[in-house]
Amino acid sequence: MKKLIITIFGSTGDLTSRKLLPALSRLYEQKQIPEETMIIALGRRDYDTDRYLEQMNQNSASDLNIDILKKLVQYFKIEITELDQYDALVELIQSNKDKDTRELFYLAIGPELFPVVSKHINKSNLVEIGNKNQSIIFEKPFGHDLNSAKEINEMLWNYFDEKQIYRIDHYLGKEMIQNIMMVRFANRIFEEIWHNRSIKNVKIIARETDGVLGRANYYDHAGALKDMVQSHLLQMLSLIAMDVPLSYFSEDVKDEKVKVLKHLSFDKESLISAQYDGYLNEENIPKDSKTETFVFFKAFVNTPRFKGVPFYLMTGKKLDQKESVIIIEFEETNEQRKWDLPLSTNKLYIKIAPLDGVGLVLNSKVPGLRDDVETVELEYCIACNAVGNMSEAYEKLLLDITNHHKTLFTRWDEIEYSWKFVEHVEKHQSKPVIYDNHEMLEKMIKDLTGEDMK
Amino acid sequence: MKKLIITIFGSTGDLTSRKLLPALSRLYEQKQIPEETMIIALGRRDYDTDRYLEQMNQNSASDLNIDILKKLVQYFKIEITELDQYDALVELIQSNKDKDTRELFYLAIGPELFPVVSKHINKSNLVEIGNKNQSIIFEKPFGHDLNSAKEINEMLWNYFDEKQIYRIDHYLGKEMIQNIMMVRFANRIFEEIWHNRSIKNVKIIARETDGVLGRANYYDHAGALKDMVQSHLLQMLSLIAMDVPLSYFSEDVKDEKVKVLKHLSFDKESLISAQYDGYLNEENIPKDSKTETFVFFKAFVNTPRFKGVPFYLMTGKKLDQKESVIIIEFEETNEQRKWDLPLSTNKLYIKIAPLDGVGLVLNSKVPGLRDDVETVELEYCIACNAVGNMSEAYEKLLLDITNHHKTLFTRWDEIEYSWKFVEHVEKHQSKPVIYDNHEMLEKMIKDLTGEDMK
Repeated sequence: MKKLIITIFGSTGDLTSRKLLPALSRLYEQKQIPEETMIIALGRRDYDTDRYLEQMNQNSASDLNIDILKKLVQYFKIEITELDQYDALVELIQSNKDKDTRELFYLAIGPELFPVVSKHINKSNLVEIGNKNQSIIFEKPFGHDLNSAKEINEMLWNYFDEKQIYRIDHYLGKEMIQNIMMVRFANRIFEEIWHNRSIKNVKIIARETDGVLGRANYYDHAGALKDMVQSHLLQMLSLIAMDVPLSYFSEDVKDEKVKVLKHLSFDKESLISAQYDGYLNEENIPKDSKTETFVFFKAFVNTPRFKGVPFYLMTGKKLDQKESVIIIEFEETNEQRKWDLPLSTNKLYIKIAPLDGVGLVLNSKVPGLRDDVETVELEYCIACNAVGNMSEAYEKLLLDITNHHKTLFTRWDEIEYSWKFVEHVEKHQSKPVIYDNHEMLEKMIKDLTGEDMK
Repeated sequence: MKKLIITIFGSTGDLTSRKLLPALSRLYEQKQIPEETMIIALGRRDYDTDRYLEQMNQNSASDLNIDILKKLVQYFKIEITELDQYDALVELIQSNKDKDTRELFYLAIGPELFPVVSKHINKSNLVEIGNKNQSIIFEKPFGHDLNSAKEINEMLWNYFDEKQIYRIDHYLGKEMIQNIMMVRFANRIFEEIWHNRSIKNVKIIARETDGVLGRANYYDHAGALKDMVQSHLLQMLSLIAMDVPLSYFSEDVKDEKVKVLKHLSFDKESLISAQYDGYLNEENIPKDSKTETFVFFKAFVNTPRFKGVPFYLMTGKKLDQKESVIIIEFEETNEQRKWDLPLSTNKLYIKIAPLDGVGLVLNSKVPGLRDDVETVELEYCIACNAVGNMSEAYEKLLLDITNHHKTLFTRWDEIEYSWKFVEHVEKHQSKPVIYDNHEMLEKMIKDLTGEDMK
C-alpha cells in the first residue's frame, strides 16, 4: 500500500475525537500506515483544519497528537445530505489518489443518515461497486430489530459489494476477545476438554457502573438486551461455543460463529429483566418507560459439542463494578466425587475489561499439616505485562481494514441470526423489576439457577 | 491419643538437632501432639538433659525452642549395642506409659547399626511384634543395592510387623510432593488429559549446587543414581505416572505406585553419567573413584496410560542452581499444526524446591497489533502465600506416624522394585565424563534427545 485516504463522515462527533483520531495518529507514529496518509474530515461547520483540530482536542478525553494530525488531516466543509456538494469531495480525492491508493469511507454518523449518505456516495461515484481498494465502514447499531437491520443491509447491498463493507463492533477489537481463539485452539489443556463432557457451564458477564448518561434517546428504545446482548455478548458466546473452523481466516471462522447463533435456544423461566431505580428520572427518559437496564438469562447451544451446557448471560448498568469477563467452569473430577473431596471446580477466567488477562482457578492441598483442598488462582495479566504495547480496539480495527482482514468484523448473517435470537428472547420479557443494588439481582439469579455470577 | 513417648536412637546426631527436635517442638506448640509427650533421647555420652539440649542447640541450624524441649526431653545414657543396658530403658518407658500410650522408636542411626539395635529392641521386649501402638521408624538408605535392601528388610520382618514399620523418605513429606495427588485428581483440566495421547513428555529434575560435603564415605559408594534416583526421583515418577488408585488411602496408592515401578524401562542409549571436576580431590574420596555425581536418562512407563511417553530423569551435584521440579509437557493442538501456528506447548511445572508452587505455561496472543502467539506463565507460589503455615517435611511425617497414616512412607515392594530398576540402569553405566559446568551437560542432553531440561 503506497497511499491511504480516509474520509470520515461525521468527523466533528465524539467517535472521531475520542477514538478515530487518536488511533490513526498512533498507527502513523508506529509506521503501521503509509507515510502518505490523508484524513479528510467532513463537517457542515465553517472550520479550517487548525480550528477543527483545536476543537477536536478540546472534545477528546486525552490530548491529541496535534503535530502528527496537522500533517494528516484536511478539514472539508460539506452538507452530506446534499448530493450536489459531493462533486468537490470527489475532485479532492481524485486529485490526491493514484491507482494503488487504499480508500476508506468511515460513516461515523447516526443510523438515520446511513441511507441518504450511502446513496450519495454511490450516485456521486465516490465509491464504485466492487472496487476492492475502496471500503466502507459502519458502526453498530445495525438496526433496532431484525426488520430494520434487514432494511439497512439491503440498502447497503444496493450501493456496495459485501466485500467492501466493514461492520464494526468495537468489542471484537479488544485484546482478549482476539485472544479467545488462541486460548482455545493453541492450548492443549483447554482444546482437548472444550466440550459438554468437561465444561459444566459458561458465564458471559458485562457489568457497567454508569447509568444511561447522554444516550437516553437511543438507549430507551434499545435496552440492555438489544444494546449489549445482541452484539457484544452473543459475539463472545459464539467465539466460545463455535466448533473448530476449517482455517484461522475470516470466512471460515464466521461460518462456525453463525452455526452457533443458529443453534441457540434459551430457557424462558430463567429470564430476568430489571431497571435501575432512578432510570425514570433521567433526562429524556419517558416517565412510564419499561426499558430494561439489566438482563439475565440461561441459553443453550444445541450443537453436539455444547448440548446441555448452560450459558448464563448477564449485563446491566449501575452495577457494583465495571467488568467484562467470560467464566468457563469445568466439571468436577471422578475422584473428587469417589473420594469425598471438596467439589470445588476448575474455572478459566477470560478477562476482557477493565484489565485484559487470563485467570485459572485450581484445586491444591492446603499448605501445612492438614490434607484438605483449597482453591488457588493462577493469573496472567496481559495488560500489566504489555505496558506500551497494548493497542486500543480502534487501532487494531482500522489497521485490519487497511489490510483487508475481515475476521474482527461482523458478517450480515451473524447480525441476522443474533437479531432473530434476541427478538425471540424479547417476546418473553415482562415489566422489569426495579433494582437499587446488585446484590438483589445476584440473589434472584442464585435463587433461580443456583449459580453465583463469579 | 492420651500420651506419646518418642524414643530416639542416635539422638546426638545432626538429624535430631536439625530436624527432629525442631519438628517436635513445633508440633507441640501447635497442640498437634499430646500435652503429655515425652521424648527420650538416647546417647552414649555422659550428659544430663540440660547439657544435652545445650549441645543440640549449638549443632542446630537455627535456635531450638529450649523452653518447650525442657518440658518434653529426657536424656538417657545407653550403649545401644549392649543388650543388657536396655533393661533400664524398658523400665523408664514402662513407668511412664499406660495402655493407650503411643510409642515411637526412631532409629536416627547409620544402617550398619540397624540389625543389632533391632535385635536388642526385640529381645529386650521394648517393642512387641504386632503391637499397634508401637511403631519403629527408619531413615533411608535402605541398603546399597537390591540384595542388601532385602537383607535389611528380612531382618526387620524378623523383629517387627510390617504395619509397625515406617520407612522415611523425607521427600515425601514436602508440600508439593503431597500436593501431586491433589493436582492430578482434583483438577479436571489435568485429570482428563493425564495420559499418553496428551502428554508429550515428563521431566523429573533435582539439581544441587553443593558438592559431596561431609558425606564422602557414604556418597562415594552410592553415587547420584543410588542416592537420588532410587529414592526421590522414582518416588516422584511413580506419583506422576500411577493410575487412579481405588481410594485416596495408603495401600491403594502404594499398589498403583508399585505397578509403575514394575513397568519401568529405560533407554540405555540415553544414559549420561558424569563426575564433577574436583570430586577426586574431596576429602575421603579415593583418587581413582568412578562414582557419578550426575546422572541423566530417558525412561518409559509401559502401562496403557503412559506407554511411549519419555520420562527424562536428571540429577546432579555442583550444578548452577538448587532446584527440584517436575515438568509435564503437553502435546501441541491439532489446530497449531493445521493452521501453521507456532508449536509452543503447554507445560505444567510442579515446583518442589526451593519454593513450593505450581506454574503453567500457556499460549496467548502477543498483545498489540500483531496476530502472533507468545507463551505466558501463570504462577501460584504456595510457599509465598502460606507464610507461617508451611510445615517442614519432618513435622508432617512425625504427625502422620502418630496418627497411623502410612501414605507418605515407603512400602517394602516400592523399595524392592526401585532397586531392581536402578540395578538394571547401573549395569549400563560406564566411566563418568568430567564436568565443570552445567551447560556442557545440558548440551549433551540436547544433542542426545533434542530436549531442553527446563
